[in-house]
Amino acid sequence: MFESAELGHTIDKKTYKQIVPQLRADLLDAQFDIGQLKAFSVLILINGVEGSGRGDTVNELTSWMDPRHVLTYAFGDPSDEEYERPFMWRFWRALPPKGKIGILFHNWYGNPIQARVTKQIKLPDLNQQVDEINRFEAMLAREGTLILKFWFHLSQGEQARRFKALAGNAATRWRVTKADWEHHKHYDKYRDVAEHVLRLTSTAHAPWIVVAGADSCYRTITVGRTVLEALRKRMDLEARGVQPPVSAAPLPPKTDAVNLINALKLDQPMPKKEFDKQLEKLQGRFAMLTRKPAFRERPLIIVFEGQDAAGKGGTIRRITSALDARQYRVVPIAAPTEEEKAQPYLWRFWRNVPRNGWITIFDRSWYGRVLVERVEGFCAEADWMRAYAEINDYEDQLVRHGSVLVKFWLAISPDEQLRRFQERETTRFKRFKITAEDWRNRERWHEYERAVCDMVDRTSTEIAPWTLVEANNKYHARIKVLRTLCERLEQALAT
Amino acid sequence: MFESAELGHTIDKKTYKQIVPQLRADLLDAQFDIGQLKAFSVLILINGVEGSGRGDTVNELTSWMDPRHVLTYAFGDPSDEEYERPFMWRFWRALPPKGKIGILFHNWYGNPIQARVTKQIKLPDLNQQVDEINRFEAMLAREGTLILKFWFHLSQGEQARRFKALAGNAATRWRVTKADWEHHKHYDKYRDVAEHVLRLTSTAHAPWIVVAGADSCYRTITVGRTVLEALRKRMDLEARGVQPPVSAAPLPPKTDAVNLINALKLDQPMPKKEFDKQLEKLQGRFAMLTRKPAFRERPLIIVFEGQDAAGKGGTIRRITSALDARQYRVVPIAAPTEEEKAQPYLWRFWRNVPRNGWITIFDRSWYGRVLVERVEGFCAEADWMRAYAEINDYEDQLVRHGSVLVKFWLAISPDEQLRRFQERETTRFKRFKITAEDWRNRERWHEYERAVCDMVDRTSTEIAPWTLVEANNKYHARIKVLRTLCERLEQALAT
Repeated sequence: MFESAELGHTIDKKTYKQIVPQLRADLLDAQFDIGQLKAFSVLILINGVEGSGRGDTVNELTSWMDPRHVLTYAFGDPSDEEYERPFMWRFWRALPPKGKIGILFHNWYGNPIQARVTKQIKLPDLNQQVDEINRFEAMLAREGTLILKFWFHLSQGEQARRFKALAGNAATRWRVTKADWEHHKHYDKYRDVAEHVLRLTSTAHAPWIVVAGADSCYRTITVGRTVLEALRKRMDLEARGVQPPVSAAPLPPKTDAVNLINALKLDQPMPKKEFDKQLEKLQGRFAMLTRKPAFRERPLIIVFEGQDAAGKGGTIRRITSALDARQYRVVPIAAPTEEEKAQPYLWRFWRNVPRNGWITIFDRSWYGRVLVERVEGFCAEADWMRAYAEINDYEDQLVRHGSVLVKFWLAISPDEQLRRFQERETTRFKRFKITAEDWRNRERWHEYERAVCDMVDRTSTEIAPWTLVEANNKYHARIKVLRTLCERLEQALAT
Repeated sequence: MFESAELGHTIDKKTYKQIVPQLRADLLDAQFDIGQLKAFSVLILINGVEGSGRGDTVNELTSWMDPRHVLTYAFGDPSDEEYERPFMWRFWRALPPKGKIGILFHNWYGNPIQARVTKQIKLPDLNQQVDEINRFEAMLAREGTLILKFWFHLSQGEQARRFKALAGNAATRWRVTKADWEHHKHYDKYRDVAEHVLRLTSTAHAPWIVVAGADSCYRTITVGRTVLEALRKRMDLEARGVQPPVSAAPLPPKTDAVNLINALKLDQPMPKKEFDKQLEKLQGRFAMLTRKPAFRERPLIIVFEGQDAAGKGGTIRRITSALDARQYRVVPIAAPTEEEKAQPYLWRFWRNVPRNGWITIFDRSWYGRVLVERVEGFCAEADWMRAYAEINDYEDQLVRHGSVLVKFWLAISPDEQLRRFQERETTRFKRFKITAEDWRNRERWHEYERAVCDMVDRTSTEIAPWTLVEANNKYHARIKVLRTLCERLEQALAT
């Protein structure tokens, strides 16, 4: 893959000076246009071998553009806040919003390649990480991010020449470190691993662009023109209103009346007295679990979904009242804010990922994508269809970090919902719980039921199973939720 | 101050159970009302002696309320991200937005009191911190935050009884630590320091509420009722549309035509050739300064203000092109987002405070409060009048943390502005820089001039002086800015 980059490309100073003024003006123009449109974000990943001029090129390029709309991040060792969250969290935080350009050095490619070169991981581990990267980038691309991946290349001989040149000049000597020479010794190994990774991650939506790094004029013009062309092409697509095609066959229609939800026996007995007894016992058990030393090493994430008036709020209060207010946070999910709308749909959940030892309870969640957004048509079929796999990937990242993830669907019958709606309308301190939207959603009962069944079929996994809770009787529902929480937590802390 | 709290207040279980249902319902109602109105946030600070039931009371109270709109934070040792920013940064991040309730344990009172008890700081240091807290709380209150400060009290005898009771029960033994008994030994000292701090920080807008902590029913009802009454009183004020009175005399009218801005000689000579030579020299000097080891311990914050078309963008580009793209961020300030509007006006600047070794360049800044917001009437006179002192306090916090703060006003004449506006309208790649708003602002030239003079008079301080830059000649302006930056940075790194 590096053959072209070793042909000795150069552009002389004079030609460079002729090209630059127009290129700068065009880039500035294009940058302005995407900033006005705010339809997509631009993510530029900078990778490559040491000494290949990555930093210099980016500095030159950003000096041409409007620095107010370029966000550059470089990632060193994780901070402790980053260390206590999934590996990708630091990158999630650094994604540019729509209309802006984000440049990421030492991004998600840095660590896997380095770890493989130094033999900290085996080839299958590397391939697994590569697979995850591909899925992540695919999700970003479909969420509207324009991804540009630059690999700056030098042959081994060029690298040696470059280091020697820098080391020989008093003004630049500090730029060549011991680590660089160490790196140089492993050039062949590094090249092999890089080529492997580049091959597997050159995808239709995010292909690698290999840049010959030896000549500074050449590499700057190459990167500048590539960025310009990518921006223009994308603006053109936006202007023509091109929509992503639905690539999958539609979900098969249901051919009989049996489904996960209507197979539930929603009326489960639980006398008040029994409830009181069990509640106290379970709350105590749960509280003690959260105080175990092992819990300090893990985040707990609890997701609640369910029909309107299914009793999510009341159940959450029975959980939180067993906890110390200092260790949990309840995140109610309503319409996204404007900052959230300028990011991928998972971003507002990323920003609420808890640290180790903390508990976050989501009152509605990322599953809105395949429930309300699907049923109400807030997103295209292609978008909610891909969300199943994206959500599974996201949850996999959470769980692999060590999070305990527990998901509940609270199910009630249409009759029980009607009874609760009516009660809410007549009880003073419940009046705020019922809105016109609730009545509208009720008319789409069967569409929601279908969506719920698909959701469970596609996202109830061995790492994060759904628990369906029969909730016509609130007492039963609350006890089942608390018992499930205790069991899942015991299981997790025992491993 | 603790006399009342030592009278042995109690409420028996039976009375408690009679009171609670109505109190819960009322609190839930009040919480709903403030959430709908979204006019102010509620900040509850929880402090007091060990063993006084702070955690239990808050847990009980939050279990009554809707946990989706309560944010509870407890602060332990700072994370490394917090450690590299001003002391208050961790608290800035935890403030509740309008419509929500935030509960803060171990808040800004924890550290100063503890440090004084253990003699890490002297009394004048404590008093200085107390003074800063008062100013900070005053600012929050005027920004619309309802502040409730609870101090949970126990007499020394009650504290001993409480610790012994907990230690004597197998289920609660873990709750009494060595540190608690250590703390108990220093009870008198702690009480003295606390009383001192409470006295000095019991202000009209944020008085302390001392709660007798020995009886759990009593303290819960007391805190619950206090919160309820505070919410109701504030809702009542909001309903009546009560505005804060202007407490200060108006700024004196200018009695002659001499002012800071028109005293400037805006046309300063600087031939292009001289500019090119100096620019390169200064950029190099600046770049080398940012690579010094001492710079890694300090953040650099650069603020640009100036008339429209005064050349802020071009000047910023001359700074950033000397820097590595990985170490700076340019923050353009436009209208606040909806998340920002739900917070004090300084919040959107707090969230962009750089870590040590990083550079943040603000293209317009917190000075908008006393410039555009004053002139256009976006905030009341009382609001911008208090902003001078609040901004000075904020900058003091930045500088005391170690930040180097450099502020530039770029000044051009009305004629020069007109020339630039016209040029912008006719040049293709400058067209985006000129809007109808720019023409409107121009009509208020003299009002802006007045606002600028007041701003400089009131916020040019020994820790963060304003540099007025004659900017009719762009070359002169850019050189003066870069030279000032170098000088300020050299000075700072030498100390």
